[in-house]
Amino acid sequence: MARVHNFNPGPAALPLAALERARDELVDFRGSGMSIIEHSHRGKEYESVHDEAIALIRELLSVSDDYHVLFLQGGASQQFAMVPMNLLPAGKSADYVITGGWSEKALEEAKIVGSVRVAATTAVNGKYARIPKASELELDPNAAYVHITSNNTLFGTEWFDFPDTGKVPLVADMSSDFMWRKFDVSRFGLVYAGAQKNVGPSGIAVVLARKDLVEGGRKDIPKIFRYKTHADNRSLYNTPPTFSIYLVRNVLSWLKEQGGLEGIEKLNREKGRVLYGTIDEFADFYRAPVEKDSRSLMNVVFRLPTEALEEKFVTEAKKRKLVGLKGHRSVGGIRVSTYNAVSLESVQVLTTFMREFAKANA
Amino acid sequence: MARVHNFNPGPAALPLAALERARDELVDFRGSGMSIIEHSHRGKEYESVHDEAIALIRELLSVSDDYHVLFLQGGASQQFAMVPMNLLPAGKSADYVITGGWSEKALEEAKIVGSVRVAATTAVNGKYARIPKASELELDPNAAYVHITSNNTLFGTEWFDFPDTGKVPLVADMSSDFMWRKFDVSRFGLVYAGAQKNVGPSGIAVVLARKDLVEGGRKDIPKIFRYKTHADNRSLYNTPPTFSIYLVRNVLSWLKEQGGLEGIEKLNREKGRVLYGTIDEFADFYRAPVEKDSRSLMNVVFRLPTEALEEKFVTEAKKRKLVGLKGHRSVGGIRVSTYNAVSLESVQVLTTFMREFAKANA
Repeated sequence: MARVHNFNPGPAALPLAALERARDELVDFRGSGMSIIEHSHRGKEYESVHDEAIALIRELLSVSDDYHVLFLQGGASQQFAMVPMNLLPAGKSADYVITGGWSEKALEEAKIVGSVRVAATTAVNGKYARIPKASELELDPNAAYVHITSNNTLFGTEWFDFPDTGKVPLVADMSSDFMWRKFDVSRFGLVYAGAQKNVGPSGIAVVLARKDLVEGGRKDIPKIFRYKTHADNRSLYNTPPTFSIYLVRNVLSWLKEQGGLEGIEKLNREKGRVLYGTIDEFADFYRAPVEKDSRSLMNVVFRLPTEALEEKFVTEAKKRKLVGLKGHRSVGGIRVSTYNAVSLESVQVLTTFMREFAKANA
Repeated sequence: MARVHNFNPGPAALPLAALERARDELVDFRGSGMSIIEHSHRGKEYESVHDEAIALIRELLSVSDDYHVLFLQGGASQQFAMVPMNLLPAGKSADYVITGGWSEKALEEAKIVGSVRVAATTAVNGKYARIPKASELELDPNAAYVHITSNNTLFGTEWFDFPDTGKVPLVADMSSDFMWRKFDVSRFGLVYAGAQKNVGPSGIAVVLARKDLVEGGRKDIPKIFRYKTHADNRSLYNTPPTFSIYLVRNVLSWLKEQGGLEGIEKLNREKGRVLYGTIDEFADFYRAPVEKDSRSLMNVVFRLPTEALEEKFVTEAKKRKLVGLKGHRSVGGIRVSTYNAVSLESVQVLTTFMREFAKANA
């Protein structure tokens, strides 16, 4: 079957070139007589892939030497626990800004580890339609860190301007919008991202961590959960998920060929323009619940007049090879995830369908 | 290049059939128009793979309903911490049997979490040449659990008869000999294994856990680290490493076709017979440091008369496509890892080389 238009929320569409590269050398990696999956993580073949993946992140994001670039297992969900375990000592408190289901989960996990405060929330009846304004944040100047979720996959909101937290380190879960554009890493104490949206398969998380925070991290936790352990060992303390990191490398190589983050940002903004433009054009039919300046360019959510029409929309879309459009089970509606690997063409096929569907069912 | 004879200690050789299956459907999984890597972990395509992998473990090992079969991230190294975090409450102590570098690491990590005792060690000057006899174990009848490492990849020793720990749950790190043969799961409270030796790629660990232990596990730890969280969600609490579990499924399918664990045990025993037979035949040249009844069938270690000859052995072996033979950097010598996917033919090519090398260099 021809490749479909894949709008899955994550695991999500990957660049075809990255997958084909993996396929072509899956059984014999670069003439070595074995798969990259079968190579030792201590051998030169794998290590060169590992180092290239780290170097590509550094290069594409202009990460300075003040930061470690780590590959860790357990996804963002494990980072919900590791961040406070490392960075929240007894006697200190951490600030959490709550903008959706994932920041709620990060908060819940941190509560088990230490003392936390909610610095802001945009919840209204359990739903979220916007990112808070800077003036709404009640920041504790003595907090161990401030935690935000930069993009909210369930509710389709995204931070475009990051808050100024002064001397308090800013920590961001960027799982669903990591590397959709360039950002100033030096404004953050720590950034983490599950790879399965913009940069690779599930089973690997990227962490950018300021070296002084890593050094000062708590030592009374198991070694495997200390950022320092992984930083000291170039993410080779224990056996890493080698094939997952290899795939991240393939995706980042492709990203570089697209003009790097400047190129991909241009594409992502164009996809958003086309998609939100169509929604607004048919505003009587497609209702966008998110406030305009909080609209995510990664997860575009909207409702139709009835749930029955939403179901029909998903079913008819599938016939045109448009898949992965159903909203999260906790939210409902339609969700279009337009991560880096989703092409403008896929979005155009979708908006053509949206116009026709609106006209036929209005 | 033709496939080499891969004796890597892990990540290790995988069955060619499992890799080819992955390659053939890498870009289009069963006509779905996308890779399995791009499928949602909540969709029917991935879920059927996930469930099949669990079912194959249950079937091949005859795992009863008293046990959960879990897929977790972080490898065995994360289990070193998760076992005591879940199963070692304040006021209790856990017994560790030390038979090599990995049990030392498990002990060190547990010490950070709670109170531990060494129930036995076979260390002599920091080296290990045997598994302790049952009579040597000084078990605490009130211990929270007894921990063993069933196979020791560095030193090449293996447990063939598991200790009777009475009512105290027996916990085993089986990373390097999981599913090399059938074993009686009901003798264990918990078994864990990084997949990258016998059953799949790195980045995924299999855990078999008795349901009452999971239920009674500590609740004062982050949710992501509780076995109960993953058990309650069929290992789909957070996004699992979908491709890694898919590959485990492919490997287990292949294993079933080899006659299941009875078939693979026969093959593994034959490989060991051929390899140890050659070592013993040339006992003046190849020195096996491990006591005979502790000799591992997974990692066969031996020394040559000099380190220079060991280096020459590795170099000349490589010319015959025999790779992965260098001993662990902390131990030296030669290590031949003969996990499930290593064929008898590969072992025969190696022993032919060993004979010639011994004759030419004695």
